[in-house]
Amino acid sequence: MVRWQPGTSERLQAAALELFATRGFEQTTTAEIAAAVGVTERTFFRHFSDKREALFDNGDAFLHSFLDAIVAVPADAAPLQIMAAALQGAATWFPDERRAHSRRRQAVIDSNPALQEREQHKFAVLATSLAEALRARGVPEPAATLAAQSATTVFTIAFVQWLQDGEERSLAEIEQRVLAELRDLTAA
Amino acid sequence: MVRWQPGTSERLQAAALELFATRGFEQTTTAEIAAAVGVTERTFFRHFSDKREALFDNGDAFLHSFLDAIVAVPADAAPLQIMAAALQGAATWFPDERRAHSRRRQAVIDSNPALQEREQHKFAVLATSLAEALRARGVPEPAATLAAQSATTVFTIAFVQWLQDGEERSLAEIEQRVLAELRDLTAA
Repeated sequence: MVRWQPGTSERLQAAALELFATRGFEQTTTAEIAAAVGVTERTFFRHFSDKREALFDNGDAFLHSFLDAIVAVPADAAPLQIMAAALQGAATWFPDERRAHSRRRQAVIDSNPALQEREQHKFAVLATSLAEALRARGVPEPAATLAAQSATTVFTIAFVQWLQDGEERSLAEIEQRVLAELRDLTAA
Repeated sequence: MVRWQPGTSERLQAAALELFATRGFEQTTTAEIAAAVGVTERTFFRHFSDKREALFDNGDAFLHSFLDAIVAVPADAAPLQIMAAALQGAATWFPDERRAHSRRRQAVIDSNPALQEREQHKFAVLATSLAEALRARGVPEPAATLAAQSATTVFTIAFVQWLQDGEERSLAEIEQRVLAELRDLTAA
């Protein structure tokens, strides 16, 4: 019987990213990822359904960084205020110490269309979950979906900017700038 | 040698939709679609790479219904005005006579995750193309991507509403309402 080791999942993710970044996603096998961590391929599949998922395992925590921030917003807040709070919540999930790791992960994703599709799916789930959270707070449609989609757009634009070479502003600061741009754009 | 028949592509699309709607997408084969129109399966594959594409062949015309409308907008128009024009252009591609057909197509797409993914990809291409058109007109980033994504969001929300049972307003009218909601939302 293989004993469960705390941190195996995290070590597999780190090894997967390292191999994807240095050898390429297509060229890396699940057996190699498992071997890099000293576990069997079977153990790999106990943690991830396929090698792609080793890059996407934190999806729930990512989602909750937005959703948990919404809970703290006063009941009478406008939809855009709620979305601003959600964006600030997400920014705490991406502190500056994480930027190098996120850049590396993004480079792997950018190199492979199947990974890009999976990443797009993650953002579609985010938009759907945010709209649901807004409706649960009494925001009607189409305002709920519009606000949720807009927040998702602001996040994706800010995140790409945060990853740029030489960018030193925090994600929270960039999100605020992009949200202000959206306000200017629609007020014009 | 099979002689090319004008309209074969359109007849294959109509037969595909009919079969997908009555028998289900998974249960329908390309051979059956071809047979329904009286051509060989080989002819089917001369027109479409797979059966999924028989539902998505008008992608270019769809895209151009947005892009062509942008060309007519005065050079000094604000990004949101340009997007409003693009949305009105798209509405001419979906006149009321087309609503029943669009409802039928949507029901097929809603029944199959692979078709939903393909439809999402169509909207991702739309957003990218609109952003490109805005940049070509001198709109800087992130305003170009924000406006393009917002227009895509407005279109998808308005389109779902246009397809609702009992909905009788034109797509153009619904788009204007949703765009006004977006303005209210971001002004709050």
